[in-house]
Amino acid sequence: MDDLIKEINEFRDERDWRQFHNAKDLALSVSLEASELLENFQWKTSEEAIADDLENIKDEIADVMIYSLMLADDLGLSVEAIIRNKIKKNGEKYTVEKSKGKKN
Amino acid sequence: MDDLIKEINEFRDERDWRQFHNAKDLALSVSLEASELLENFQWKTSEEAIADDLENIKDEIADVMIYSLMLADDLGLSVEAIIRNKIKKNGEKYTVEKSKGKKN
Amino acid sequence: MDDLIKEINEFRDERDWRQFHNAKDLALSVSLEASELLENFQWKTSEEAIADDLENIKDEIADVMIYSLMLADDLGLSVEAIIRNKIKKNGEKYTVEKSKGKKN
Amino acid sequence: MDDLIKEINEFRDERDWRQFHNAKDLALSVSLEASELLENFQWKTSEEAIADDLENIKDEIADVMIYSLMLADDLGLSVEAIIRNKIKKNGEKYTVEKSKGKKN
Repeated sequence: MDDLIKEINEFRDERDWRQFHNAKDLALSVSLEASELLENFQWKTSEEAIADDLENIKDEIADVMIYSLMLADDLGLSVEAIIRNKIKKNGEKYTVEKSKGKKN
Repeated sequence: MDDLIKEINEFRDERDWRQFHNAKDLALSVSLEASELLENFQWKTSEEAIADDLENIKDEIADVMIYSLMLADDLGLSVEAIIRNKIKKNGEKYTVEKSKGKKN
Repeated sequence: MDDLIKEINEFRDERDWRQFHNAKDLALSVSLEASELLENFQWKTSEEAIADDLENIKDEIADVMIYSLMLADDLGLSVEAIIRNKIKKNGEKYTVEKSKGKKN
Repeated sequence: MDDLIKEINEFRDERDWRQFHNAKDLALSVSLEASELLENFQWKTSEEAIADDLENIKDEIADVMIYSLMLADDLGLSVEAIIRNKIKKNGEKYTVEKSKGKKN
C-alpha cells in the first residue's frame, strides 16, 4: 500500500498537479469516478455489465481508489488504519447477532 | 492489503451478507459512500470541512475503500494490479510533457 | 413551473440562504440529493424499494428538482427551454431509426 | 410541466425505451447525470466552470430533470405536488427563526 501511494504521489508531482488537489475537489473526484464505475451497470444486470466491459470496470475501481488514496494521504491518514477503525465501528453497529442474514 | 481484504471478507461472511453483494449493488454502494464523503464539503471550503468533522471524513473514505475492495475481490481482481495498470494508462494519456502544471 | 421557482426563491430568501448558493455547491447538492434518492434502491429491486418507502422516494426526487431549479434560476436559465433543447439534441443523436428498442 | 412530461414520454415511446426504464435504473441515471453536471465544476470555481462550458451545464441540468420527470411520472407522481410538499416539510424542519443566515 505504501508503495502504491508513493507511485501515485510521484505521478502527480511529476505533473505538478498537487496545486489543484484540495480536499474538496479530491472528494468531488472520488464521487465522479464512482459514478463512472456505476455507469457500467446502467440498464444492465451485474452479469451483463461484467460481460460488456470488465476492462472499464477495473479502470474505474482503480480511479476511485487512486483519488481516495490521494485524499487520505493529503490528510495525513493511513488508509489501513482508517479502514481497520471503520471495520471495528461497523462491527459494533452491526453485531453478528443483530445483523446475520439481514440487509441493514 | 491482502490482510485488509481478508478482514473485510470475514466481516461480511460472519454476517452472511455476501448474498446481497452483487456487483451492481456494490458499485452503487461505492457511489453512495462517495457522496457521503462529499457531503462533508457541502457549502464549505476544504479547510472548513476538515475542521468541522475530520472523523467523519476518515470514516467515509474508509467506506468508499471497503466497498471498492469488496467489489474488486468479488470480480477476482488484485487492487494493486488494477491501480498499477491504471497509473500506467494515465501516464500514457497524460504525459509529463503535455500535462505539467495543467488541469486536464 | 414559474410559480414553483418563485416559491423556492421565497423559501431561500426568507432564510437568507442565497449567500451560500454558488453554482458549484448547488451542483454538488444536486448530486448529493440524487444519491439519497438512489440509496432507496440499495440492495433492492425497484418493487421492493417502492414498497419500502415511496414517501422518501418522493421527497428525494423533489430535493433533486428543487436544487436543479435553483441552479438553473441562478444561471438565468429557463428550465423549460433547456429541457426542450436537450430533447431536441437527444432526438438528433438517438434517431428513432437507429435507437428503437436498443439500450444506447 | 405537463406538456414537458408528454414530450419526454413521446420521446421514449417512439424509441420503445420504456422497457428499460425500471425505477432503480432511472434513479441510478438521475445520479449519473448529476455527476456529469458536477464534473463541469471539478478543479474549478463556479465562475470558471460557467465561463468554460455553460452549454454543457445547461444540457446536464436538463438531463437530471428529464430523468427525474420520467421517474416521477412512472411512479404516478405529480412533480408539482411532491415539490410543494417537500418545500412545506423543509419549512417545518428549517423554520425561519432557527435557520436565518445559517448553513444547516
